[in-house]
Amino acid sequence: MAGCKILFVMGCPEVPVQTSIVLYFSNKLRKHGHRVTVAGTDAALRLLSVSDPEGHYIENTMDLDQCIADLVERRIEFDYCFVFMHNDAGMTYGASISVISKAKLYAIVFGKNAESIAETIEYPAEKIVAKAVHNPTPLKNKLDRVVI
Amino acid sequence: MAGCKILFVMGCPEVPVQTSIVLYFSNKLRKHGHRVTVAGTDAALRLLSVSDPEGHYIENTMDLDQCIADLVERRIEFDYCFVFMHNDAGMTYGASISVISKAKLYAIVFGKNAESIAETIEYPAEKIVAKAVHNPTPLKNKLDRVVI
Repeated sequence: MAGCKILFVMGCPEVPVQTSIVLYFSNKLRKHGHRVTVAGTDAALRLLSVSDPEGHYIENTMDLDQCIADLVERRIEFDYCFVFMHNDAGMTYGASISVISKAKLYAIVFGKNAESIAETIEYPAEKIVAKAVHNPTPLKNKLDRVVI
Repeated sequence: MAGCKILFVMGCPEVPVQTSIVLYFSNKLRKHGHRVTVAGTDAALRLLSVSDPEGHYIENTMDLDQCIADLVERRIEFDYCFVFMHNDAGMTYGASISVISKAKLYAIVFGKNAESIAETIEYPAEKIVAKAVHNPTPLKNKLDRVVI
């Protein structure tokens, strides 16, 4: 089904695969006819816009705190939300989203502590977990299996 | 002057800004009519291809060891070479290139030890140094001043 509203949530860009995977997966979902908004910290969004200088892969971005506020106030809503996380901060963003949004939630967990972080997720979310740090392929392959 | 042959050399992608800056700067040079080849380690090239799934920004890539061998054997040559480095390995690649290629050499030094790494470069290279780790803007601004 095309035309879904999809939110990506990006935490701090310490792990190199994050930006790459967001560019890849945003492009893929857009080619399937969905509308993708990427919310992130300043650093994450800056890295993304430098990586995609002509805007081929990323359509809309927004400040993460503003996104959370707008969800709480019901000014925006999404059908699906993918939260990219490699540390406790990202995990906590996922917890917030699970409470303030009706979107179907996916926790995309990567980095060297991916498995232990994934174990601590107790809110309702589909978990996609790969120990990817520099090599995006394991995470890419798992995301390729997500059907929207 | 358009039509220059330009080589980028990428080391291990531990520092998140590397992939972003390579995508940005390759696109910019290509828009000026130059031909850019990116040589890198497996991980660096994989990250790059996932980041640019439709190939809008990166035209040619090649294995870094093959590139070094081809330069030594004089099978390839470039007008300019930008070596991206954030550690000793990258610094050493720059040293090799300075010996085996006649290209005008730029050392693009980033990461948290950028300044100390830059100080150890004794081969002839124009140094572009920024302490960028997650924030690509300082390095982007310095690269924007390079005129080819």
